[in-house]
Amino acid sequence: QGVAVSGFAEMGFFGATDVDTQFHTDIDVTFTMSGETDNGLTFGASIDLDESDGDPSPAFDGDTQGGETIFLSGNFGTITMGDTDGALDWAVTEVLFNSGSIVDNEEHIGYNGNAGHDGSLGNSDGQVLRYDYSFGDFGVAVSAEQIPGVGADAGDDTAFGIGFRYGLDLGGSSINLGLGYQGSDIADVLALSANGSFGGGFTAGLSYMNFDVDGGGAGDYDHVGIGVGYTTGAISLHANYGVYDYDGGGDDEGFGLTAGYDLGGGAVIQFGYGYNDPDGADSFDTYSLGVAMSF
Amino acid sequence: QGVAVSGFAEMGFFGATDVDTQFHTDIDVTFTMSGETDNGLTFGASIDLDESDGDPSPAFDGDTQGGETIFLSGNFGTITMGDTDGALDWAVTEVLFNSGSIVDNEEHIGYNGNAGHDGSLGNSDGQVLRYDYSFGDFGVAVSAEQIPGVGADAGDDTAFGIGFRYGLDLGGSSINLGLGYQGSDIADVLALSANGSFGGGFTAGLSYMNFDVDGGGAGDYDHVGIGVGYTTGAISLHANYGVYDYDGGGDDEGFGLTAGYDLGGGAVIQFGYGYNDPDGADSFDTYSLGVAMSF
Amino acid sequence: QGVAVSGFAEMGFFGATDVDTQFHTDIDVTFTMSGETDNGLTFGASIDLDESDGDPSPAFDGDTQGGETIFLSGNFGTITMGDTDGALDWAVTEVLFNSGSIVDNEEHIGYNGNAGHDGSLGNSDGQVLRYDYSFGDFGVAVSAEQIPGVGADAGDDTAFGIGFRYGLDLGGSSINLGLGYQGSDIADVLALSANGSFGGGFTAGLSYMNFDVDGGGAGDYDHVGIGVGYTTGAISLHANYGVYDYDGGGDDEGFGLTAGYDLGGGAVIQFGYGYNDPDGADSFDTYSLGVAMSF
Repeated sequence: QGVAVSGFAEMGFFGATDVDTQFHTDIDVTFTMSGETDNGLTFGASIDLDESDGDPSPAFDGDTQGGETIFLSGNFGTITMGDTDGALDWAVTEVLFNSGSIVDNEEHIGYNGNAGHDGSLGNSDGQVLRYDYSFGDFGVAVSAEQIPGVGADAGDDTAFGIGFRYGLDLGGSSINLGLGYQGSDIADVLALSANGSFGGGFTAGLSYMNFDVDGGGAGDYDHVGIGVGYTTGAISLHANYGVYDYDGGGDDEGFGLTAGYDLGGGAVIQFGYGYNDPDGADSFDTYSLGVAMSF
Repeated sequence: QGVAVSGFAEMGFFGATDVDTQFHTDIDVTFTMSGETDNGLTFGASIDLDESDGDPSPAFDGDTQGGETIFLSGNFGTITMGDTDGALDWAVTEVLFNSGSIVDNEEHIGYNGNAGHDGSLGNSDGQVLRYDYSFGDFGVAVSAEQIPGVGADAGDDTAFGIGFRYGLDLGGSSINLGLGYQGSDIADVLALSANGSFGGGFTAGLSYMNFDVDGGGAGDYDHVGIGVGYTTGAISLHANYGVYDYDGGGDDEGFGLTAGYDLGGGAVIQFGYGYNDPDGADSFDTYSLGVAMSF
Repeated sequence: QGVAVSGFAEMGFFGATDVDTQFHTDIDVTFTMSGETDNGLTFGASIDLDESDGDPSPAFDGDTQGGETIFLSGNFGTITMGDTDGALDWAVTEVLFNSGSIVDNEEHIGYNGNAGHDGSLGNSDGQVLRYDYSFGDFGVAVSAEQIPGVGADAGDDTAFGIGFRYGLDLGGSSINLGLGYQGSDIADVLALSANGSFGGGFTAGLSYMNFDVDGGGAGDYDHVGIGVGYTTGAISLHANYGVYDYDGGGDDEGFGLTAGYDLGGGAVIQFGYGYNDPDGADSFDTYSLGVAMSF
C-alpha cells in the first residue's frame, strides 16, 4: 500500500540510412500506487514522470488521458480506466520477444502494435474503459472509448471492443491464443494472435489484423506479423517480420532484429536493427546500440 | 525527515445539462518534505507532480508561485511562502464537508472558496507570504502578496491581510469562528465564518464575504454560503447553498450535494450534483459518480 | 539499488538596483537511481522534477538532453552521458565556495562557470558523452558533444574535450589543479584552475579561461576568476571576483559575496550580494536573503 517509485534509463547511440549516428539518452520515473479496501478489493494507479510533460499535460485533465491508468479489482473482475489497452489490444499479443532496443528499431514500418482503435481515430485521445475477467485458462474483456465528433455538428462516437484470451499449458511449453474486435462509426478492426514458449529458450508468435474503414477502401489493410525469440544464459535474440497489405494496392513491410546481453542487476546491453521498405519509396535501415537500465 | 511520496487517483463519469456523460480519469503524486533544525525548528515544503506542468512551470521560477509551499515553524509561530492561503482564507472556513466529488460538483456557480485576493486580482500570481501564530483556542495570521502593476508605468501594489480564528470545545461539540480582511489598491475584502461539529455525525457551517472593488460598484458583491454534513458509518452526505449578490443587481446562485461511501484503505465512492443558476442565463446541472483513491 | 527521492526548497527575498524587493520561492525534487551488475559494475541515472518541464521536455527525447544524466562505471573508468560536464568543465574548478545564495548573486556578470563549449555554441543542446578515469592523485577525462549544423547545408560538428586533474594532499591542507581544452569548428577553449583548502577553515581558488572563436576576434576573451571562503562553526563566508577581458576592447566584471548560517538538519540561512559592472552600461547590485532547505 502506498506509492512505489521505480526508474528506467538508457544511454547509447543510434542512426539510420542517411542519418548520422547520434547520442541517445533517455530516462523515466514511474509512480505505482496500490491499495486494498476493507472488503479485499484491490485498487491502484500508475503514472510516469514523462507524462507530466505538456502545457498542460492531459494526464491531469479529467476528461482526457495522458498516460495515467487507474484500476479497481475484485472477484467480479477488473475495471481499468485511462491509458490502458482496449479489449482488442488486451487480447492480441504482439510478436516482439526478449530485450528490445533503445530506440525500438524492431518496431519498423511494417510493425503493428495491435492498438486497433485505441487513441488513433478521429478525435480519440486514448482514454479507455476496460473490464476484464479471467477464469481458469480463459479470459475475456470488453472496452469502450469515447470519440468526440471532429466537426461542429458531428455527433459523438464510441469505439466498443471485445476480446478473448486462451492459455494452454503443455508442461514445459505453453500456447496463448487471442482474438479481438473493435468497432465504431469510423472503422471495424478484427485481430487474432497465437504465440508460444517452447523448450530450449525458444518463443514464437503470429498476429493478424484486418482494418476496415467505414466507407473507405484504399486505406483498408490486412496486416500479418511473425516473430521469434531465443534466450540462452545472458544472451537473448529476436527477429520479426511484418507487412501491411493495402486494399488499394501496395504494401509497407519490414523486419527487425534485436540482441541483448543481460549484465544483471537491471542493466542490459541492447543492439537493434530495423529494415524498412515503405510503399513507393526507398527502403532504409535503422540501428542502435546501448545500455538499458531498470531501477 | 526527508521526502514522503503520496498519491491520489480518481476514475468515474461526469456530465452536465446538454453535455454528454464522459469518462473521468485523474491522478496526482505529492512530494512532502520535512526537516528539523538543531534548535528544534521544523521546516518543510510540498509540491505535486501536476505542478511540474507548464512550459516552464511557475513552480520552478523563483519570483512566481506554481503550487509549491515552503514553511519554517517554531515557538515564534509559522512562516509560510508560496501557494498558501492569505490570512483571510486561512481564517475563514469553507462550507464544504465530507467526501466531495470527483469533478467538484459541490463547487457550483454560487460557491465561494474564500480565496479573497489570493492570486485573483491584477497581475497577481498567488505567491503569498503568511505568518500565523496560535495560543490556546485563538489563532492569528497576517499575510502579504505582491501584485505587479499591469501597465508600463503602473506602480506595484501589495495585498495585505489579517485573520483571526477562535475554536470553542464544548465537549462532544465544537464551534470554530473565523474573521479575515484583505486590502490592496484594487479591492477590500472582508469575510467571516462560523462552523461546528455536533454530536451524531452532524456538521454545519456559514460564511459571509463582502468584496468591494476600489472605485468599482457593479462588480462588488456580498456572498453568503451555508453548508451541512452528516456522517454515519461508511456513509457521508453533504449539501451546500451559495449566492453572490451583486451591487449592480442580479445574482449567481447554486447548490451542491455530495454522497460518499468509504470502502476503506483510502478508496471512497463519490457522487456529486451541482445546480447552477447564473445571472441572466439558463440554469444547468452537473453530476459525477466515481471512485477516489488515496495512496 | 533503486530510486532515492531527495528534495530542495528555498524561501526568501531578492532584489536589485531599480528592481523592487520580491518574494522568492523555489523547490525541486531529485530522483537518483543506482544499480550494480553481477560483475560489480555500478550504474545509475538522475533527473529532477523541474526537468519534466517543457512541452515536451527534452529530457524524455532520446536525441536531446533535458537534465538527465546516466552513467556506467567500473575498473575501466566511468562513462557518463546526458547533462554532464564536458572534459573541460570536469577538470576546471569554479571559484565558488561555501553556502551560495538563493538567487545566486555570487554568479555576477563577471562570473564564469567554466562550461566552455557545453550546450552553448551553435545548435548544441548540451548532450555530452564523457569518459573519465582516476588513478592515485591524477584524473583524466575526454568528452564529445554533437553540434548539428545551423543552416540547411551546414555540416554537423563535434566539440571534443580533454581534461586533467591533479590533487595534492599536504596533510591538513590540499591543493587541486585542473587543466582542460575543448575544440570544435566553432571555437577553441583552454582553461585551468588551482584551488586549495587550508587550515583554519580557509579555502581559495583561481581560474583562467581563453575563449577563441574561429575566425572571430572581437568576441574572443580571456577570463580570470578568483575566490575565497572561510568557515567557522555554523557560519560560512565567501567572496569572488571575475572579469571577462574582450579582445575587441572593454570588459564585464563583478564581484559577489555570500554569507551562510547553518541551522542544522539541512536548513541554511543565506545572504548574497552581487556587484555587476557590464561593459558600456551602468553598474548594478543584486541581493537576496532567505532560507535554503535540503531534504
